[in-house]
Amino acid sequence: MSNLKFLMPTKITVGENCVKNNFSDLILGKRCMIVTGKTSGKKSGALDDVTDVLRTNGIEYLVYDRIGNNPTIEETAEGGAAARAFGCDFLIGIGGGSPLDACKAIAVYATNIPSENGDFKLYDIYKGVYKNKPLPMAAIPTTAGTGSETTPYSILTLHKEKTKKSFSCPDVFYRVAFLDGRYTVNLPLQIARNTAIDALSHLLEGYTNKKASPLTDYIALEGMRILGKHADILRNGNFTVDICTELLWAACIGGIVISQTGTTIVHSMGYGLTYYRDIPHGMANGFLLGEYLERVRSVAPHRISECEAAMGMSLDKFKIFLSDCLPYNGAFSKDEITEWAKTSIKARNVASCPFDVDYDTELEIYENCLL
Amino acid sequence: MSNLKFLMPTKITVGENCVKNNFSDLILGKRCMIVTGKTSGKKSGALDDVTDVLRTNGIEYLVYDRIGNNPTIEETAEGGAAARAFGCDFLIGIGGGSPLDACKAIAVYATNIPSENGDFKLYDIYKGVYKNKPLPMAAIPTTAGTGSETTPYSILTLHKEKTKKSFSCPDVFYRVAFLDGRYTVNLPLQIARNTAIDALSHLLEGYTNKKASPLTDYIALEGMRILGKHADILRNGNFTVDICTELLWAACIGGIVISQTGTTIVHSMGYGLTYYRDIPHGMANGFLLGEYLERVRSVAPHRISECEAAMGMSLDKFKIFLSDCLPYNGAFSKDEITEWAKTSIKARNVASCPFDVDYDTELEIYENCLL
Repeated sequence: MSNLKFLMPTKITVGENCVKNNFSDLILGKRCMIVTGKTSGKKSGALDDVTDVLRTNGIEYLVYDRIGNNPTIEETAEGGAAARAFGCDFLIGIGGGSPLDACKAIAVYATNIPSENGDFKLYDIYKGVYKNKPLPMAAIPTTAGTGSETTPYSILTLHKEKTKKSFSCPDVFYRVAFLDGRYTVNLPLQIARNTAIDALSHLLEGYTNKKASPLTDYIALEGMRILGKHADILRNGNFTVDICTELLWAACIGGIVISQTGTTIVHSMGYGLTYYRDIPHGMANGFLLGEYLERVRSVAPHRISECEAAMGMSLDKFKIFLSDCLPYNGAFSKDEITEWAKTSIKARNVASCPFDVDYDTELEIYENCLL
Repeated sequence: MSNLKFLMPTKITVGENCVKNNFSDLILGKRCMIVTGKTSGKKSGALDDVTDVLRTNGIEYLVYDRIGNNPTIEETAEGGAAARAFGCDFLIGIGGGSPLDACKAIAVYATNIPSENGDFKLYDIYKGVYKNKPLPMAAIPTTAGTGSETTPYSILTLHKEKTKKSFSCPDVFYRVAFLDGRYTVNLPLQIARNTAIDALSHLLEGYTNKKASPLTDYIALEGMRILGKHADILRNGNFTVDICTELLWAACIGGIVISQTGTTIVHSMGYGLTYYRDIPHGMANGFLLGEYLERVRSVAPHRISECEAAMGMSLDKFKIFLSDCLPYNGAFSKDEITEWAKTSIKARNVASCPFDVDYDTELEIYENCLL
């Protein structure tokens, strides 16, 4: 037993009305910028709950709702400038993965001004080195997928490398996270499915990861058990607030797991589909996940058996579940997957894959899954 | 699913030579006071490793080795005064539960001066309210039992209430913890047993606790599995560094679990044996644990079955394991257990017990276990 590490400093609070019932945990300063998308904060009801708490407690706030899907590094730098201009001392991120990841970068840019000629340049955020502590942050997920609320990762679109790329720094762990199924119960079914499959992808990539440890194993299996239990509901809809809270919890566990293990090639290979074809992140992972797990089985069959037992379905059944949940009628060309493989093989998490991976492996996986 | 909370912000690093291999994590400031016992730091080798790192990195330090068994609140206030006098800005706790718990109180008293007439009085630490942030701390356990390195608890002897009593505050979580089996491999067998049984007690009390959650369940079972696997070694000795690292990890998991759930009456009832009879904490728990688990079985038989499966032994076998590991020839009187029950029934964790507990219940448990 050696070189095991564990860090997950976020305080997690789960349950209906948890924001209002634990409002003092939400207030991390005196002046707040809320980072959210155009609709997710409002539609989910989370934004109203948050602004009620802030108003009641005399906290001035600005709603910064300019975060779209797959935000770029440049957009988050603008958010940082907005936070500085408003003079806030803490942030609340509300939304799916895009606002929650963007909020982390905004927290860094709020206290570290990027400039072309200065010590801290725009892309230096990827090095995780900056002078001033990022602003403290609270997270309220409105999808049950990203797990961003419990990871030190922020995945941002990087046009100059034509992909999504993550930065990681313990400073950008959220201080607190609030998981309330009321905020996800009315999601469109396809979004609920895509995000749930993102969560499953975190759990499965964490469990089969070279960096998995006994502790992450146990946690990951718990997340798989929850998602497996609700597989039929993910197929058919029919969510309740309670089930949605459980799914949020499973997604949050996925975040805890990948905080320790990182992801594998499913994630890095999925970024091509999202960057070039605008396929939602969870769906992109889902297209690749079955083939990935088959390859894991060839080197570590017992690990796959354990996942099957936790999810309550065989890998074959799981692949049917994925295709039931992820209808996609697009066609992909050999040319484009060749390009994607060239980019994705450079990702760091290739090294965490339990089987050997080179460019040809990735190309073959793309071919088997997409052509 | 509601009102679930999870917080455990400590960064855990596990493995042989983890202090030296991750020395930058140990250095939390510019001037350090090391809080340890008279012998544990030196005998374990941990003190040498730490002072080597501090010297190499030009950090001035003071070794404060005045922490005995079951430290009092007054002793920790003296430690706080010593830290202020030395002008340190971080602490390193090295030892078993006594130094590691004392270090937390010293961290509070170092930055908050208690005075009879001031805002902050000596015993106010039990309220968890003080003005200034405690000093940041690193933990290096030299026994595999306390789990103090991953809890917000500090259990101190309180003579005015004739018991041990804990305070709890998220501010006193250790920033980092280093688990290296080299520091515990040469422990006397009886200490290794007592402390392992303390760890088992945390895991079992956490698992059977009213505040248990799916996540703490999974983690707790992992800890039980490790300790169950090494039951024969705990009976007979024959430790290796690797096994000791695993036991440290299991104890650390016990800390993570009770950070979320708290303990139950085993702990509060054990304090009488320790306060009045100087019986080591883990041993005191061990005397009471079998009877406690029998009573849990009467209300939640499936929970006990799960613990049995994880430990790889039936409850009957576990009770034999406890008596094999905990030889004690003392005799207890009805008078003294009557007194202990009067104190222990007032403890907060009575409410977390899965079966109904009143004074008569506790007296009966004491009688069955000790008379």
